[in-house]
Amino acid sequence: MKEEIPFSKDIALAFKNEPPGSWLLDLPEGCIRLSSGYPEPSLVPVEEVKSAVVRLLDEEGDLPLHYKGSPRMPKLAAMIQERMAKRGVDLTEQEILVTSGACQAIDLVSRVLLDSKAVVALEAPTYMEALEVFGNYTEHFMNVPVDENGMDTTRFAEMLANRKREGLTLPRILYTIPSSQNPTGTTMTLERRARLIELAEEYGFLILEDDAYGELNFGDAPRLLKALDRGNRVIHIGSLSKVVAPGMRIGWAAGPEEIITTMNWFKKDLHHPFGQATMTTFLEDIDFDAHVEKLSAAYKRKCEVMIAALEKFLPPAVTWYTPEGGYFVWVRIPGVDTMEMLPQALDAGVSYVPGNYFFQSPENNEFLRLSFSYATDEEIVKGVELLGEVAGRNI
Amino acid sequence: MKEEIPFSKDIALAFKNEPPGSWLLDLPEGCIRLSSGYPEPSLVPVEEVKSAVVRLLDEEGDLPLHYKGSPRMPKLAAMIQERMAKRGVDLTEQEILVTSGACQAIDLVSRVLLDSKAVVALEAPTYMEALEVFGNYTEHFMNVPVDENGMDTTRFAEMLANRKREGLTLPRILYTIPSSQNPTGTTMTLERRARLIELAEEYGFLILEDDAYGELNFGDAPRLLKALDRGNRVIHIGSLSKVVAPGMRIGWAAGPEEIITTMNWFKKDLHHPFGQATMTTFLEDIDFDAHVEKLSAAYKRKCEVMIAALEKFLPPAVTWYTPEGGYFVWVRIPGVDTMEMLPQALDAGVSYVPGNYFFQSPENNEFLRLSFSYATDEEIVKGVELLGEVAGRNI
Repeated sequence: MKEEIPFSKDIALAFKNEPPGSWLLDLPEGCIRLSSGYPEPSLVPVEEVKSAVVRLLDEEGDLPLHYKGSPRMPKLAAMIQERMAKRGVDLTEQEILVTSGACQAIDLVSRVLLDSKAVVALEAPTYMEALEVFGNYTEHFMNVPVDENGMDTTRFAEMLANRKREGLTLPRILYTIPSSQNPTGTTMTLERRARLIELAEEYGFLILEDDAYGELNFGDAPRLLKALDRGNRVIHIGSLSKVVAPGMRIGWAAGPEEIITTMNWFKKDLHHPFGQATMTTFLEDIDFDAHVEKLSAAYKRKCEVMIAALEKFLPPAVTWYTPEGGYFVWVRIPGVDTMEMLPQALDAGVSYVPGNYFFQSPENNEFLRLSFSYATDEEIVKGVELLGEVAGRNI
Repeated sequence: MKEEIPFSKDIALAFKNEPPGSWLLDLPEGCIRLSSGYPEPSLVPVEEVKSAVVRLLDEEGDLPLHYKGSPRMPKLAAMIQERMAKRGVDLTEQEILVTSGACQAIDLVSRVLLDSKAVVALEAPTYMEALEVFGNYTEHFMNVPVDENGMDTTRFAEMLANRKREGLTLPRILYTIPSSQNPTGTTMTLERRARLIELAEEYGFLILEDDAYGELNFGDAPRLLKALDRGNRVIHIGSLSKVVAPGMRIGWAAGPEEIITTMNWFKKDLHHPFGQATMTTFLEDIDFDAHVEKLSAAYKRKCEVMIAALEKFLPPAVTWYTPEGGYFVWVRIPGVDTMEMLPQALDAGVSYVPGNYFFQSPENNEFLRLSFSYATDEEIVKGVELLGEVAGRNI
């Protein structure tokens, strides 16, 4: 059939880039899931969502089941506007687009700003879905290293200066997860954030700030890049996936009105009245500050359980960054290929995500990502113990 | 800012193509909405959706609120598979992709198959969102006329032969709504359907069959194009928007596995566990055949009310097609520009959609689309009476 039909080249592209991690969703029975970036089940507000749906449909009848009928749909954008203001970012309604999760927002930004000639700068390592999205638009990347203080802006400045000197194309966007980064769990310092904004002004790129974990801080909340953004160069991406429930698919983008309007133009799943109105009703019913505080405290404790277990059970050569928020710990097992080690870990009864899934061009297979979000305390301790045994056999 | 930042050309495109119909959502208070392609409010299953959510969350807890946890998600695809089999189409699981409505399915097909050189053949007039979607990928169209028997395949065959003779690019896809077409309400005859499949084989294009209204038939159900498709050239698009509720955003695409897999690759809103699992639970609880029969009978009656009112109140020169299903009546008021007449109709208290919104390149402004789906019987009669008065003043 391929010969007969005028298929687009994109089909070849998609098959070339087959998603790496379907095994992640299909783990052996009883396997301790330190791979899953899911919220803790007991913190997912099942009863509250149920009550929200009942109240919504009792109050509005068929309205949220039509295309755009629910009065709660504009209200959701207004709530996001209010929350962002509280975090130091003043936005107009026209600067906010509600999306089906952060991933769709990244895709829509790419749809508007990228083509096959564009260069994308991103953290190495970074969120694997973002790598897939950008890979659908371009093959040109700048991989900026990350250390315990987040993206290395000094190195990035050198890379930019080199490209400029050599007459190479400069990046059109920089994609960053500045707070509790996925997968490293690191948070960019305020100094680096300020430097990054300067670099964007100097080299003329836009910053895509993925703030999926930005509300889950174990200490003080870091300053948003969007709050430092005087030149309107930051497109901020938020999500309720990590603080409410990923299955509700609520995210947003906030940035220059022209870009937001165009993203909306390309958003052809249209609006999601039922899901959005349900989430709005849910948010009306809770104290969001208290909710975020409860979640942050719970994940902080689980993180401490994991760090203590790592200290107890992992061989001394193994290192990690201590997270200041989020869901993840990034672990390095020197000299060990974590991709090759994975089947042994699954056999032993614990899962992790091999680090090379998070690199646009993997150079080094010594890393792995552990999640402390989904598993129970007991599972975390047991899972890290099993991982320690497996690592000990490989090191 | 436009000068400084490397904006994609797509921004200009989007602003050029500004959506036509925002007034449609913002009608004057009390205006009779013969413009809205919404289901009848009393036929939207509000209580059933509420019960479905309660049952789902009671049975599954947090599972439908995670990324992919609900066992009901694969079940939805299996239900679609079963329904399609009942309608004469045997599909594997890999040939079905659940989407956020038909519109997203059209967008994903376009993402996979179109580029700026591609030619898209489509009915003139056709679904306005589809025009927007295709316009995001290409500027090259073949506009195929529609008469009371649906798309004119004889004319289409001539157009194709001419293009071939002149060495012009042949279409990559034909987009059609063969049953109860939006906006004309017409249904393609079986003979024309068979001819269309032949043309696809002869000229090497794929057929995009939009079946959004295909379950709502006032007489016998027409044969699906996909059921006539021996060469695997048809991508079928279905939706629950017209038979359950558009706000749930459930649609699907069914076609060649390679295309479906690639569409899934580009679907970056990811999955919608809560909405999809809710709809699956809803479908478990109802007799879908009986549901469709009830809806078809109700819309048939409303259609008869509208046709009787048109006969009674519209000037004799005005003509229309009598629908065999769906939501719409396509009306022609000879010599009248329905775009110019619209403000008068809104002043009088009735809305319609001017016909030129449904053409890729409008040639003739004498048409308008009326919906009998959303308004009550009384509103339909009153609305058509008001329209008759306005038309009489303009004719």
